[in-house]
Amino acid sequence: MKFNVGIIGCGSITRFRHAPEYKANPHVEEIVFYDRNIERAQRLAEEFGGRVAEKLEDLLTDSSIVAISDCSSNEAHHINTPKALESGKHVLCEKPLAISVKHAKIILEAERKSGKKLMIDQNQRFTKAHQKAKEIIQSQELGEVLTFKTSFGHQGPESWGVTKSNATWFFKKDRSHSGVAGDLGIHKIDLIHYLLDDEIEDVHAFHGALDKVDEHGKPIEVCDNVVCALKTKKGRLGTASFSWTYYGAEDNATTIYCQKGILKIYHDPEAQLIMEMNDGSVVKYELEQIQTNDNQTNTGVIDAFIDCIVNDLNSPVTSREAVASLKVVEKILGSSN
Amino acid sequence: MKFNVGIIGCGSITRFRHAPEYKANPHVEEIVFYDRNIERAQRLAEEFGGRVAEKLEDLLTDSSIVAISDCSSNEAHHINTPKALESGKHVLCEKPLAISVKHAKIILEAERKSGKKLMIDQNQRFTKAHQKAKEIIQSQELGEVLTFKTSFGHQGPESWGVTKSNATWFFKKDRSHSGVAGDLGIHKIDLIHYLLDDEIEDVHAFHGALDKVDEHGKPIEVCDNVVCALKTKKGRLGTASFSWTYYGAEDNATTIYCQKGILKIYHDPEAQLIMEMNDGSVVKYELEQIQTNDNQTNTGVIDAFIDCIVNDLNSPVTSREAVASLKVVEKILGSSN
Amino acid sequence: MKFNVGIIGCGSITRFRHAPEYKANPHVEEIVFYDRNIERAQRLAEEFGGRVAEKLEDLLTDSSIVAISDCSSNEAHHINTPKALESGKHVLCEKPLAISVKHAKIILEAERKSGKKLMIDQNQRFTKAHQKAKEIIQSQELGEVLTFKTSFGHQGPESWGVTKSNATWFFKKDRSHSGVAGDLGIHKIDLIHYLLDDEIEDVHAFHGALDKVDEHGKPIEVCDNVVCALKTKKGRLGTASFSWTYYGAEDNATTIYCQKGILKIYHDPEAQLIMEMNDGSVVKYELEQIQTNDNQTNTGVIDAFIDCIVNDLNSPVTSREAVASLKVVEKILGSSN
Amino acid sequence: MKFNVGIIGCGSITRFRHAPEYKANPHVEEIVFYDRNIERAQRLAEEFGGRVAEKLEDLLTDSSIVAISDCSSNEAHHINTPKALESGKHVLCEKPLAISVKHAKIILEAERKSGKKLMIDQNQRFTKAHQKAKEIIQSQELGEVLTFKTSFGHQGPESWGVTKSNATWFFKKDRSHSGVAGDLGIHKIDLIHYLLDDEIEDVHAFHGALDKVDEHGKPIEVCDNVVCALKTKKGRLGTASFSWTYYGAEDNATTIYCQKGILKIYHDPEAQLIMEMNDGSVVKYELEQIQTNDNQTNTGVIDAFIDCIVNDLNSPVTSREAVASLKVVEKILGSSN
Amino acid sequence: MKFNVGIIGCGSITRFRHAPEYKANPHVEEIVFYDRNIERAQRLAEEFGGRVAEKLEDLLTDSSIVAISDCSSNEAHHINTPKALESGKHVLCEKPLAISVKHAKIILEAERKSGKKLMIDQNQRFTKAHQKAKEIIQSQELGEVLTFKTSFGHQGPESWGVTKSNATWFFKKDRSHSGVAGDLGIHKIDLIHYLLDDEIEDVHAFHGALDKVDEHGKPIEVCDNVVCALKTKKGRLGTASFSWTYYGAEDNATTIYCQKGILKIYHDPEAQLIMEMNDGSVVKYELEQIQTNDNQTNTGVIDAFIDCIVNDLNSPVTSREAVASLKVVEKILGSSN
Amino acid sequence: MKFNVGIIGCGSITRFRHAPEYKANPHVEEIVFYDRNIERAQRLAEEFGGRVAEKLEDLLTDSSIVAISDCSSNEAHHINTPKALESGKHVLCEKPLAISVKHAKIILEAERKSGKKLMIDQNQRFTKAHQKAKEIIQSQELGEVLTFKTSFGHQGPESWGVTKSNATWFFKKDRSHSGVAGDLGIHKIDLIHYLLDDEIEDVHAFHGALDKVDEHGKPIEVCDNVVCALKTKKGRLGTASFSWTYYGAEDNATTIYCQKGILKIYHDPEAQLIMEMNDGSVVKYELEQIQTNDNQTNTGVIDAFIDCIVNDLNSPVTSREAVASLKVVEKILGSSN
Repeated sequence: MKFNVGIIGCGSITRFRHAPEYKANPHVEEIVFYDRNIERAQRLAEEFGGRVAEKLEDLLTDSSIVAISDCSSNEAHHINTPKALESGKHVLCEKPLAISVKHAKIILEAERKSGKKLMIDQNQRFTKAHQKAKEIIQSQELGEVLTFKTSFGHQGPESWGVTKSNATWFFKKDRSHSGVAGDLGIHKIDLIHYLLDDEIEDVHAFHGALDKVDEHGKPIEVCDNVVCALKTKKGRLGTASFSWTYYGAEDNATTIYCQKGILKIYHDPEAQLIMEMNDGSVVKYELEQIQTNDNQTNTGVIDAFIDCIVNDLNSPVTSREAVASLKVVEKILGSSN
Repeated sequence: MKFNVGIIGCGSITRFRHAPEYKANPHVEEIVFYDRNIERAQRLAEEFGGRVAEKLEDLLTDSSIVAISDCSSNEAHHINTPKALESGKHVLCEKPLAISVKHAKIILEAERKSGKKLMIDQNQRFTKAHQKAKEIIQSQELGEVLTFKTSFGHQGPESWGVTKSNATWFFKKDRSHSGVAGDLGIHKIDLIHYLLDDEIEDVHAFHGALDKVDEHGKPIEVCDNVVCALKTKKGRLGTASFSWTYYGAEDNATTIYCQKGILKIYHDPEAQLIMEMNDGSVVKYELEQIQTNDNQTNTGVIDAFIDCIVNDLNSPVTSREAVASLKVVEKILGSSN
Repeated sequence: MKFNVGIIGCGSITRFRHAPEYKANPHVEEIVFYDRNIERAQRLAEEFGGRVAEKLEDLLTDSSIVAISDCSSNEAHHINTPKALESGKHVLCEKPLAISVKHAKIILEAERKSGKKLMIDQNQRFTKAHQKAKEIIQSQELGEVLTFKTSFGHQGPESWGVTKSNATWFFKKDRSHSGVAGDLGIHKIDLIHYLLDDEIEDVHAFHGALDKVDEHGKPIEVCDNVVCALKTKKGRLGTASFSWTYYGAEDNATTIYCQKGILKIYHDPEAQLIMEMNDGSVVKYELEQIQTNDNQTNTGVIDAFIDCIVNDLNSPVTSREAVASLKVVEKILGSSN
Repeated sequence: MKFNVGIIGCGSITRFRHAPEYKANPHVEEIVFYDRNIERAQRLAEEFGGRVAEKLEDLLTDSSIVAISDCSSNEAHHINTPKALESGKHVLCEKPLAISVKHAKIILEAERKSGKKLMIDQNQRFTKAHQKAKEIIQSQELGEVLTFKTSFGHQGPESWGVTKSNATWFFKKDRSHSGVAGDLGIHKIDLIHYLLDDEIEDVHAFHGALDKVDEHGKPIEVCDNVVCALKTKKGRLGTASFSWTYYGAEDNATTIYCQKGILKIYHDPEAQLIMEMNDGSVVKYELEQIQTNDNQTNTGVIDAFIDCIVNDLNSPVTSREAVASLKVVEKILGSSN
Repeated sequence: MKFNVGIIGCGSITRFRHAPEYKANPHVEEIVFYDRNIERAQRLAEEFGGRVAEKLEDLLTDSSIVAISDCSSNEAHHINTPKALESGKHVLCEKPLAISVKHAKIILEAERKSGKKLMIDQNQRFTKAHQKAKEIIQSQELGEVLTFKTSFGHQGPESWGVTKSNATWFFKKDRSHSGVAGDLGIHKIDLIHYLLDDEIEDVHAFHGALDKVDEHGKPIEVCDNVVCALKTKKGRLGTASFSWTYYGAEDNATTIYCQKGILKIYHDPEAQLIMEMNDGSVVKYELEQIQTNDNQTNTGVIDAFIDCIVNDLNSPVTSREAVASLKVVEKILGSSN
Repeated sequence: MKFNVGIIGCGSITRFRHAPEYKANPHVEEIVFYDRNIERAQRLAEEFGGRVAEKLEDLLTDSSIVAISDCSSNEAHHINTPKALESGKHVLCEKPLAISVKHAKIILEAERKSGKKLMIDQNQRFTKAHQKAKEIIQSQELGEVLTFKTSFGHQGPESWGVTKSNATWFFKKDRSHSGVAGDLGIHKIDLIHYLLDDEIEDVHAFHGALDKVDEHGKPIEVCDNVVCALKTKKGRLGTASFSWTYYGAEDNATTIYCQKGILKIYHDPEAQLIMEMNDGSVVKYELEQIQTNDNQTNTGVIDAFIDCIVNDLNSPVTSREAVASLKVVEKILGSSN
């Protein structure tokens, strides 16, 4: 079974993840690129093969196209994704699903009506270490989960992307909306929901722009750090830290404390998952290299999306899950500061 | 210069820390032990040399005694320490200073009147790794501190001490009052105040009795876990986790994120302090073995106390500092749960 | 539930394993020692507490005694163990069960008649690494077992035991019968049966006295080396090597090759079990220190024996299993040489 | 001294080993390629320089050619190698020398008559670790060799070569003849002969097609696993395992047990040779990276062949030695199964 | 601020260090190459961009050129560097400054008269490990320096450079003058002066041509080894060894012994600087990879030279310092042999 | 063969080395202790068994005594050792043989006349790493020795021995004579002679009292540091450093540079001997723990001494060799300072 796919928006995320991973997938016949700036679409069509759609409508009405990635900017998701769904395409929408829970609901309504599959690109779920951790937690081998800690932090987005300057859109209120909370935090919130099969219900947080400055040397308009105390529906307690000001090695670590032992994920670069047990035993899983900004390998996301279409499975990351994470981000930002 | 010292209360903390460290200090002539249960005092006098005071008054009126350790149980500190100060003795009071800020104020009043030195036994400040970290932060070599994380957790106090049973006083509301918050949390709160030369002002926390049960199999009356989001007067943000349910290796780690790099304390058993810098350089300090329940070496506390008496220095851990930590514990426990 | 146990034979195996492990077991009230040489029994009674039976009959007719260890020399097992069983005692018989399959059948007949529990001391099954390996194989996580390798070898028994001389009984035909095959080989044969839930059916072997000499400098009468090619009932193929002439570190390694990966047991002193998978993943289990002649810790055998009595379970190592291993040893020694 | 060389057969072994190593050798002027499929010869002539012989006779009668590599398929060796020898060329024949001892004798007869040098490509002898091990054994530093173990196994040949499919010729009876025994086993048999300066006389083996399937999903016609017990003329005992079903890291390890210590070859990727001695001393030789399918460096074989021609030395791997290994393979395959 | 630079001499040092580092410096507009052999200049102009000066005068009178590297051979420095200075250019002169102190004085006179900046290329000062060591020594954290050891040795210069033969100019008396003393020794003498803020006053040395032979197999005319005992003006004692016959890994280690601890530089490839203190503490600095012949990264020399011009700073390596090192080399060679 | 031995002088060296090693030697029947202070002799007789000689003459005339250790203080060796030799005893004399070459000659004359064996206690020769290095050098496996470096240094003798004060005799001119040169230097000079089968002929050295102070805070009268450049009779060049002011880990390292590689002794605590070869190969010998002040194991010296008596061998460390080392120390101290 082979079919065509379309991509809306031809920026970095398309170039580094969607285009190469679609190209490598055996079910994808051809990629059709669309961007408001047609030259950007043409450049990717040259680089990865495939063709260009001049207008968005051309993409949506092309019956050879079965699935579409919505890689448009965040404030356009609630416009483009519903259009694609309603045109009868399955959609993989970039995270965050929308700039607010309110906007997200528009998307969910379109999904419901269209009956098509909608997946959100939460790639942390797909790393081998996170999947093995999930498997161990589900097996109850360590008993119930009691508490957790999670972090996501690096030296900041201004050293990433094409521009490499403090004028980056990540630092602008109108484009980034939620700063580090939406950029990094939403990944780990989704991960905690996934690993614990639970949902964060109560959030206590502080956030602030502690160090980053814009191109004029002024403190940025969005938060560069978030610290949270969290409580889930099932009563687990945890902390989370999201930061653009970890001026050393990137930190993507999570620790899950259970009744019979501890799971340490991404603490040790050689053993991505370590299980410490209450009898002193230690099991070290050497599974992979973590997905960092410097090390872009196949995320598994595209393959999972295509697989759910081909085999008519449920979406591996549902819109309901994405909304749950989005709600937590809203609570973080709504916290007293 | 040599003089006698007295100890009020002859439990484990006296036996494992105060008595041996006084004995090893060159300025201490003789130790005089007092306990309501005179046999406990006699046993320590035999083990460490020294003599026994039959009544507390004998200790307080003994003019050969210059300094006293108050190792009585927490609810008696606000009675014994003032008595000792008002008898003209310098006092080293066990942590926590008192069971509430209100009770602590009685002690501070006695300190003020007596003009004697009062030190509180916050031993985390005295480890080599914490002292080196403080020195680096003060030097501004890494610029300003922005955020932090701190933890203190182990498998629980029921596996410690003489009894080794779930009937331990640590689990009782009337004796422990604050559960893991007062047992472990107060150490790291004091440490953060010390390292950052700052004070935690705002606290968001969750706490609960998630796993421990008493001798009847019922959930304990005090919290076995605390998670917090913290904000200091100078605007630094951080998280803290205190736990009796880390069913693997003990965790006493602290991380300090600064403008030019990161300090990692007690992350690596070989290098107790690691400095990662934003240019990729890493400096590893192999200084010591961390003070754990299994590894009781000289804490440096007694030496610092005696030193401040002999050389007429300020108390290395003042009552004002102890009250500051106590206030944070009260805020944690007062948080919505 | 508490009861007395008896031990027949007071040599090294009693002193290093049975006596201390019975003493440590909470269900054992008192140990009663018997040896033809009464002084040896008295020495152990002094060392471990307990009392001495002057005659074997005293032991067998003592109704306070519920279980007996038969630690007599190998050629006496088929005499003492039946007597004990028929006296109504549960019996833990040292390995090898008997000096031949024929003799073993006498024991099995007594077991059948008596209805008492009979366990054979095959301690390799009880190490954590072997138990974890068994669990992984049973889970089919790695698919079917295809082939295996196993070894057991050290510098020779003459450097072990009380005498430490080449006059050791291990080197004598009439006492040792099967040399290294019975001393070390039977352990790993039993282990392979246990791990694979299978039985060795065909044996091709060479054996010989290649290096060891007796107290007169002559080659010993029994084999000091065995090499085998093995085939199981389920068609798995493997090799085994048993040696008293590994003049370096002891080798107790086993490797199990499965359809999706490899289990390496006791290859690495830090990770006693390593799982390599066909996708390149590696899982390292740091579980324990292997049972060697230098490192005698609790084997778990006595606890398992007592446990099966107290809870009326099946024998953890049955006579049927012991006979199966004995048959393989007989085939090894019967091989052309 | 410089001369031309010819190569018969232009498959993978020519491309990866013979052609590049001849090209790098300072005594080789030009390579002349011959293949029944002339295009394959032309491709190599382009890649490595050199010219093409259209007919085999052209190669054999070309007086500028002093030496020839016979890289034709196994069943043609006994035809091509004698022709080359009888044309007055020195010959390096790929392993195995022939598909049976009977066919090999034709080659030996031609060698005897022609008086030219004949070398067989047993490359394991030429690794630094094997050469150092040979040197240590010969020096008698560890006394006599007593026993040995050797293995050669990987995930199977279907993942190697151009085709990468289960239709590979390795799995076909008519082309591979001896399966893993001839593919991997012959290497380690030759190695044992070389290291021990001895010859395997008695062989007990099991072999079977345990896991591999052909392109139709049926079990393959040749064995994918061999396990052996071995005995040499000098009385040494050993085991050998050859496998296409080691679904983890490749295993090319050999262990030699001597009277004063143990030699471990290719057990540790950093120290390719480790000597353990009976006094506890350990010597670690960090010499090289093992020759694996993934890591094709200079084998040393071509250099040794050219060197023996230039300096008129004996063949470094004689036909007599090759026949000795072939006999062992025949015994393995003749074993009861 | 941007300007042109000129380079006199287009050999290896220009190609590997000066040209690429000028090219990478943001203040350099264009490089102008001059060599007596114009083809060598043309080749570099092609490789790095830039243009060629046909005559030295063209370079010297080109007013767009602000700075010049004198990479001519050692015996020409005292001719070319003065010309450049007197033409009003700042000069970076290769080490050694001149073939004798006497010749060096001509250069210093020209420097004095011209008022331009003169820097000598002593690149060891600029490594991160040496700079950190200097900082620690200056901070007096370890007290006074008492003694030191320094080495610089490798397998010899004949395996380096274009020719790779024993006919190398390094081995010729008339071109190399001082053999290993001038090639390697002068680097570490300058380094000791720099690190200790001191000067070597007394020198006891042996030197000789112990192993190297020229293209005719005769011992070389210059020394291939120097060993020294050294004493500084401030009374520190040390040893130094310079060698072209260290037939293993390169050795560039220096150890500084102080009153409270030891600094070990380039002893451990992972931690380029290690501080051992008298209380047993160890601090490991993982800063960089040492500058070796195999690992040519940015030395920092060109950047420091350009920086001192742009910001009108003192020369980072002054002619006075270069003369001090040259005097020590002269004393070494003048030592009895 | 069993006999009695006598010891003259009952200080630390007798207690830690001679007495326990004689006691462990199977040929020694009884030890007879003599000391001018009879109580010291009695204490050792109690500790190690044996008896006391009241007068030196009693020891010398006791015909049951075959061998004597002269452990008297250095200035008495030339008196006691000749007496013992002339009484017909074999003598093991502590190092240094005498306080000057002149005094040593008295001892050599007595040795010549008596015909008895005289061994000097140079224990560095007897470590396994030094013996293996000697063996490799002698084998010519690495070709000729070209150069060397050797060091011996620690934190100083005042922290060693009974007194642990700066009043130690090591710091006094009249008792120590040669400071660190005689204490540590003589060991490594003897070692270089032994390893290289050569003799140091020319010495260039600096020495001084750079840091140590006596009990009054004044610089000590003897040197605490020596640095040397050395040249042997066979023309090898080297450096040596001896120090009491290495305020970190002890350094007992020696490096030998040969024509085909390098021997590094005591550079790495795990591999006491490392051989690096010019082809990049590295061999690591894990042989032993180095003899340090903290780790006193059997030196092998006593066993070698007894062995040469029992088997009538030459002295393992001859007086001629001791004089050769003494001459080098005299040259070091005679060097300009």
